[in-house]
Amino acid sequence: MEKKKPWAGRFKKGLHPLVERFTASIEFDKRLFKEDIKGSIAQARMLERAGILTKKERVELERALKEIEKEIETGSLQFGTDTEDIHMAIERRLIEKIGPLGGKLHTGRSRNDQVALDLRLYVKRETLEILHLIRKLQRSLYGVAKDNIDVIMPGYTHLQRAQAVPLAHHLLAYYEMLKRDSQRLKDCLKRVDIMPLGSGALAGTGFDVDRAHGAELLGFSAVTENSMDAVSDRDFVVEFISHCAVVMMHLSRLCEEIVLWTSKEFGFVELDDSFATGSSLMPQKKNPDVAELIRGKTGRVYGNLVAILTVMKALPLTYNRDMQEDKEPLFDTVDTVKGSLSVLAPMLETMKINRETIWEATCGGFLTATDVADYLVLKGVPFREAHHIAGSIVASCIEKGKELTELTLQEWRSFSPLFEEDIKEAVSVEGSVKRRKARGAASIKEVRRQLKRVERELKKDII
Amino acid sequence: MEKKKPWAGRFKKGLHPLVERFTASIEFDKRLFKEDIKGSIAQARMLERAGILTKKERVELERALKEIEKEIETGSLQFGTDTEDIHMAIERRLIEKIGPLGGKLHTGRSRNDQVALDLRLYVKRETLEILHLIRKLQRSLYGVAKDNIDVIMPGYTHLQRAQAVPLAHHLLAYYEMLKRDSQRLKDCLKRVDIMPLGSGALAGTGFDVDRAHGAELLGFSAVTENSMDAVSDRDFVVEFISHCAVVMMHLSRLCEEIVLWTSKEFGFVELDDSFATGSSLMPQKKNPDVAELIRGKTGRVYGNLVAILTVMKALPLTYNRDMQEDKEPLFDTVDTVKGSLSVLAPMLETMKINRETIWEATCGGFLTATDVADYLVLKGVPFREAHHIAGSIVASCIEKGKELTELTLQEWRSFSPLFEEDIKEAVSVEGSVKRRKARGAASIKEVRRQLKRVERELKKDII
Amino acid sequence: MEKKKPWAGRFKKGLHPLVERFTASIEFDKRLFKEDIKGSIAQARMLERAGILTKKERVELERALKEIEKEIETGSLQFGTDTEDIHMAIERRLIEKIGPLGGKLHTGRSRNDQVALDLRLYVKRETLEILHLIRKLQRSLYGVAKDNIDVIMPGYTHLQRAQAVPLAHHLLAYYEMLKRDSQRLKDCLKRVDIMPLGSGALAGTGFDVDRAHGAELLGFSAVTENSMDAVSDRDFVVEFISHCAVVMMHLSRLCEEIVLWTSKEFGFVELDDSFATGSSLMPQKKNPDVAELIRGKTGRVYGNLVAILTVMKALPLTYNRDMQEDKEPLFDTVDTVKGSLSVLAPMLETMKINRETIWEATCGGFLTATDVADYLVLKGVPFREAHHIAGSIVASCIEKGKELTELTLQEWRSFSPLFEEDIKEAVSVEGSVKRRKARGAASIKEVRRQLKRVERELKKDII
Amino acid sequence: MEKKKPWAGRFKKGLHPLVERFTASIEFDKRLFKEDIKGSIAQARMLERAGILTKKERVELERALKEIEKEIETGSLQFGTDTEDIHMAIERRLIEKIGPLGGKLHTGRSRNDQVALDLRLYVKRETLEILHLIRKLQRSLYGVAKDNIDVIMPGYTHLQRAQAVPLAHHLLAYYEMLKRDSQRLKDCLKRVDIMPLGSGALAGTGFDVDRAHGAELLGFSAVTENSMDAVSDRDFVVEFISHCAVVMMHLSRLCEEIVLWTSKEFGFVELDDSFATGSSLMPQKKNPDVAELIRGKTGRVYGNLVAILTVMKALPLTYNRDMQEDKEPLFDTVDTVKGSLSVLAPMLETMKINRETIWEATCGGFLTATDVADYLVLKGVPFREAHHIAGSIVASCIEKGKELTELTLQEWRSFSPLFEEDIKEAVSVEGSVKRRKARGAASIKEVRRQLKRVERELKKDII
Repeated sequence: MEKKKPWAGRFKKGLHPLVERFTASIEFDKRLFKEDIKGSIAQARMLERAGILTKKERVELERALKEIEKEIETGSLQFGTDTEDIHMAIERRLIEKIGPLGGKLHTGRSRNDQVALDLRLYVKRETLEILHLIRKLQRSLYGVAKDNIDVIMPGYTHLQRAQAVPLAHHLLAYYEMLKRDSQRLKDCLKRVDIMPLGSGALAGTGFDVDRAHGAELLGFSAVTENSMDAVSDRDFVVEFISHCAVVMMHLSRLCEEIVLWTSKEFGFVELDDSFATGSSLMPQKKNPDVAELIRGKTGRVYGNLVAILTVMKALPLTYNRDMQEDKEPLFDTVDTVKGSLSVLAPMLETMKINRETIWEATCGGFLTATDVADYLVLKGVPFREAHHIAGSIVASCIEKGKELTELTLQEWRSFSPLFEEDIKEAVSVEGSVKRRKARGAASIKEVRRQLKRVERELKKDII
Repeated sequence: MEKKKPWAGRFKKGLHPLVERFTASIEFDKRLFKEDIKGSIAQARMLERAGILTKKERVELERALKEIEKEIETGSLQFGTDTEDIHMAIERRLIEKIGPLGGKLHTGRSRNDQVALDLRLYVKRETLEILHLIRKLQRSLYGVAKDNIDVIMPGYTHLQRAQAVPLAHHLLAYYEMLKRDSQRLKDCLKRVDIMPLGSGALAGTGFDVDRAHGAELLGFSAVTENSMDAVSDRDFVVEFISHCAVVMMHLSRLCEEIVLWTSKEFGFVELDDSFATGSSLMPQKKNPDVAELIRGKTGRVYGNLVAILTVMKALPLTYNRDMQEDKEPLFDTVDTVKGSLSVLAPMLETMKINRETIWEATCGGFLTATDVADYLVLKGVPFREAHHIAGSIVASCIEKGKELTELTLQEWRSFSPLFEEDIKEAVSVEGSVKRRKARGAASIKEVRRQLKRVERELKKDII
Repeated sequence: MEKKKPWAGRFKKGLHPLVERFTASIEFDKRLFKEDIKGSIAQARMLERAGILTKKERVELERALKEIEKEIETGSLQFGTDTEDIHMAIERRLIEKIGPLGGKLHTGRSRNDQVALDLRLYVKRETLEILHLIRKLQRSLYGVAKDNIDVIMPGYTHLQRAQAVPLAHHLLAYYEMLKRDSQRLKDCLKRVDIMPLGSGALAGTGFDVDRAHGAELLGFSAVTENSMDAVSDRDFVVEFISHCAVVMMHLSRLCEEIVLWTSKEFGFVELDDSFATGSSLMPQKKNPDVAELIRGKTGRVYGNLVAILTVMKALPLTYNRDMQEDKEPLFDTVDTVKGSLSVLAPMLETMKINRETIWEATCGGFLTATDVADYLVLKGVPFREAHHIAGSIVASCIEKGKELTELTLQEWRSFSPLFEEDIKEAVSVEGSVKRRKARGAASIKEVRRQLKRVERELKKDII
Repeated sequence: MEKKKPWAGRFKKGLHPLVERFTASIEFDKRLFKEDIKGSIAQARMLERAGILTKKERVELERALKEIEKEIETGSLQFGTDTEDIHMAIERRLIEKIGPLGGKLHTGRSRNDQVALDLRLYVKRETLEILHLIRKLQRSLYGVAKDNIDVIMPGYTHLQRAQAVPLAHHLLAYYEMLKRDSQRLKDCLKRVDIMPLGSGALAGTGFDVDRAHGAELLGFSAVTENSMDAVSDRDFVVEFISHCAVVMMHLSRLCEEIVLWTSKEFGFVELDDSFATGSSLMPQKKNPDVAELIRGKTGRVYGNLVAILTVMKALPLTYNRDMQEDKEPLFDTVDTVKGSLSVLAPMLETMKINRETIWEATCGGFLTATDVADYLVLKGVPFREAHHIAGSIVASCIEKGKELTELTLQEWRSFSPLFEEDIKEAVSVEGSVKRRKARGAASIKEVRRQLKRVERELKKDII
């Protein structure tokens, strides 16, 4: 027999089975059971302090709620298809266990503020986990960078070899991106860390509860200041997902590079066998599937962001059922980001750097042509003219099939009498890299300095 | 003990457990088991005809595949966490059942063409189901329109009352939208209905198989003409989802109207109790949750479209693992569209039309002001001037708190001597509606004609 | 005759005219001319300090740059179709004016760090302007709220009347949203406020420039720490647009409500004639076009967000030309948000509140049914049971066509003997609103308190 | 002095200047002037046939409209900032020119059906242009494919070398994609090619006009069947943009490959100097900017799709001002797709294929490992086992630093006694490619057959 809905007082019929199924959220919001129980315990304490519950009642409620938590954890409590959502599922079980007292818990509370509370608790918890995983990936990047501090590689713009740079400098660029990701998530946390409970359905609870006390119990820094806003605000979900979209964008760039670097054509790195997969048909294949999959999963987080933005567009105040659609994009984003960060770190740590191949690549492609121009500038040639001379030298080298390092002083001088013997050092990869002195520049000395800073930062508290 | 991957020949280590979990798709692609087995049976027959398999082998393979299908259907075959995907899961079970013969099935086939085949079979099947559900909803709209052919309501632009229209006309607008949706899905079907099997990993099978025969066995109209395109083409997924996004956009508009119409302020319709839900806190509430939820679910289909488009952006040929991310957006879109269409039809059929309230609304708001201008036009006044006079009359009515129907002939004449007694009929709702004679216009006569056309269309075959 | 590109040294041919047109960005990036000149002046000073330029040269460069700024401002300098972008346009003009010295300015600089600098200067400036416009809109909301502190209206969930709330409370919900928007933009500013100049093309300038000095000259708080990251980072553009998307989402909600409230059916407010438009055909129409248009413009900002996210997906380091596509979404977002905020504020301030209509709406629809349940709770009935009793009372009222305030004590008692005379006060709108004591709740007293807080906040500095 | 709006009859004040600017669309919808005038001429003829206009009046109107078209074309008619949109601009000019008669043209017409008409005419025209440009690009692909029919290259999956394929086969994969794009656009055209004029503001014209006659005059195949749908339908815009998004997705894949192929690491092709650009800083650079920019522009079309979908979400019937936001995404999509197709074709045609480099790449990377497995299969080894043996051979080759072609028969036999002398031919690139016989497979013979088909298709009419 169908169980009656707790709100059925004014209705003459039960829900159509199609509606029951279509509107139920238990399949995904059961993920919030810990948050829901935590919130309910705080609610009970607020009601006790407000004199709505006796201490005895509160204690009994709390005990029963903790039992239910155990039951769900162990799987002994299952949710039927007629269960609306996790909130009603827990309330129903509560009433089964302790009778009418269970029916007191919802006093002055609505699912609207309850679900807002649960979601905020959830986002707080998961943000912390993601911050830890970001830190872990940063550590991997730092480790590989440090271990390969002497490896010089071609830096690219437009996927064309541009200038020689330390591999460590390249990897630390991702460290910086992830650092910003952490900052953004922490900034977002300030807006998540505010307690909505006590906002009721929209107008605020009708009972004289101490919301600040509730916030303290639940570890929130503040309470929401407007009940209508509190129940209809999903900014924190949008913001969280948008920051995660940027995380995935960063990972997609790193993964694109891993795909490039593991190609036969680049050959810069080789993945460990345990991080690559084969082909069902072609016996020779060793594919960077993990990198590709992370790159692909960027799409789903972008999609989740569009989903939640679309849901919220043009909704009048306050709560509308559309907002039930906030959860799956959020949960999927959390899973995707966590999964991607987790698998990337050990993949980076175990990949083999092909130093030989990288060095060969660095020696071809006129990576020091800019240094030729810079050389002339230091002799007083305006940069724009120096650039033009250097360009002509490159054009001539291409024609002759030579690298810059292979030109004789005479050949140099045929382009400008300003060239002296020291042009040879100037166009060597080592010379080029060494000359960069500015903060943040791609010299080994500066990168070493940066590694030290990074080391310090990695020791700081995450929050 | 971990089972070895079928492609492990060239690898020295198994997959890292994190990678195993991160790359596995069995959790969602098991949905394709019927398509996979259907495709494998066709593959066996193609191999038989090509002389790779004997008839006896083919028969044994086919029998075993059908057994596996049963095992999955009944749940007796479960997929462990070390299973890569549905294709490998079925092949593994096949080898368990019939030994090395099972290992022959994949001859000249790759997962790349196999998954392309399965997906196409899936989209074909689901498109048909969606076409049926669209038809069903069209029938509901037709039914409500026909049963209420005499109900005149305010037509809106800018959510401001504009002109009186038959409710049936309003509802048939949605019939038209859904008709286009069907056309689009059928157009898409032409591009889905092409068989990729035999394309191998990317270069085409190395065996002399008769692909046209395979297409016939599987009910496809044609075979793909380029193996590299065949394994890397997901256009049909993008196109299908984009058409579904438009379906949801249409439903979101209809649902927005249901939300408006069930509001106390409009009060045009009342949902059946079995299609409305209550509030956990507020005892009086009767909420149009289904309509809101469909409106909200528009977001997820938009999101799915962005996801798949993002995945496919800038992927070099041919197959890349990113493309594994095609399935979840597709499956979720199918579920969402089917669920939304299914629940909407009976909700429309059971909702109560509040004729009184609608009529009252139709009589207020100067819905026939345009008819005043048209009246003057027929007396020779240029429309732009007639419009201006009518505007002044409305302004004057607002000031006096009168409706157009309440003006005396003298009052009319104070604006223009061209007004005669028949202006009163002209500004009546009935007169206004009746005067529209053009094709597709909002007169009851024309709507009746349209209903007959719709009736004929609803009797046609869906494909 | 086509002017030679400044990078043409190594090329044998000029650009194909199609390419010239396709790749040119001058049409939109000319908007950055002030930023570009500001950055070039700082660049000149950095070069002077590094000994690359003499003081005299620097002064001459600076003077010429300022002249060019004037020329562009006054329109006397026009950009031809063969101009690549604003950076080259200004450099070319510089060389025209002062000869080879102009060619020295680009020393150690690349367009890559130059455009990153310009964009950051631009986003800084525009963020400040948007913060001011948000503040202005908040002031309007505050003003309307304060002036109407005594207006009670129906609060809605699911667009169904839910509970009575002060109009001021409803409006202040938007104040809160905008406050979060400001916070987000200010958080973003921290990440914008970092100077990339000196990063060169990707590897850092080869000259010994003092980047910290440059940052100081330009008013930046810090310098970027990794040159490769610096030239390929567009996080700040993504983040800025994503926060703007949330701003638009908020405005779309407010505008949706204005559209609803100005409908004949709601009739809660009337727009001033100067903020509404008419119909080309229907003389009586007065449409809330501004609100609709803002709601619609939400789409373009969402679209801009998707555009920039798509552009950045899977780009390998460092600069790729795809990134030229960062500007138009950014500029369009800035224009849209500024335009929407600007027009909304005076529209709100001038709209007329229809107090009568609002009050009537508040008295219908059982807005105090929750108070009935709360009443019983205070008499010891568990909330879930109390909710059920209140639901039955509402069902019975609907049947009898009565409002709660019209029930006799006897009728109340037929549902529960716990009802006393004071139930009448409890179910009055005034009583309902007054009883809410919690922080952030919808009582007039609490709203007054909130208004005071808001008043204080509105006096604070914006940054 | 501000000119009065044509709908100002009922208003007491003019528009606020901010509103004037915010709501004006003339800046972008002036692009529709030809369509608008074409539609107005048809409208005049319909009114003549309906007896609203005399022949003389119609002729005068038509003459004046054609004059206005000229005025706009030549730039002699400029639109001020107080002009609302192109429709009002032309009507105003008409009245300026011929007095009150100009005010008759709008009889029974609304901007709602007028703009729907203009947009449909526009999309029809631009679709045709795009179809031509697609055909042109297909021709380029065909040309390059045919000219290089003997070039064998590595085919890739996961960006790892997979199997040897003809370059022509690779290029024809893009031919197939573009063929589907054409089909989709043509399918869309069926839904664009329906005339909305006569639908009025929403309820259909009040005059007895012959809409079928109008459709004939304007070259439409049919008329819309429901006036409310007709004025609020933007499906065709969404559908058109979504098909364009897929076009851009295809181009982004091709451009990604061009970027890869022009990298030093691949070196497969070299762009003509006229299709590449240099660096402002690095003199040696030759960048594939066009390819990158097209890839980047994919983002803007994806964004436009999201924009229009967002705009249309949950709009109640019928016209809402939000829908003004349909034009810019549409126009921008048209420009982007046309620009990208136009520039890509000559770039492909002029790029140099580096046959040597490609051949070298084809000889490395075990591209014929699958042929080893297939070889064994033909000797009776189940494929799965054959795959495993081939995998081990590859692993052994990697260890020894050998290619498959370098193995002695003895070495082959150490893996399986089934290997005979003919394995050497089997693992040669030529042998591998030749063996593929299936339809659509990557053998030169089959590709020649496909080229003939393509040749025939390229001769067919575009529509």
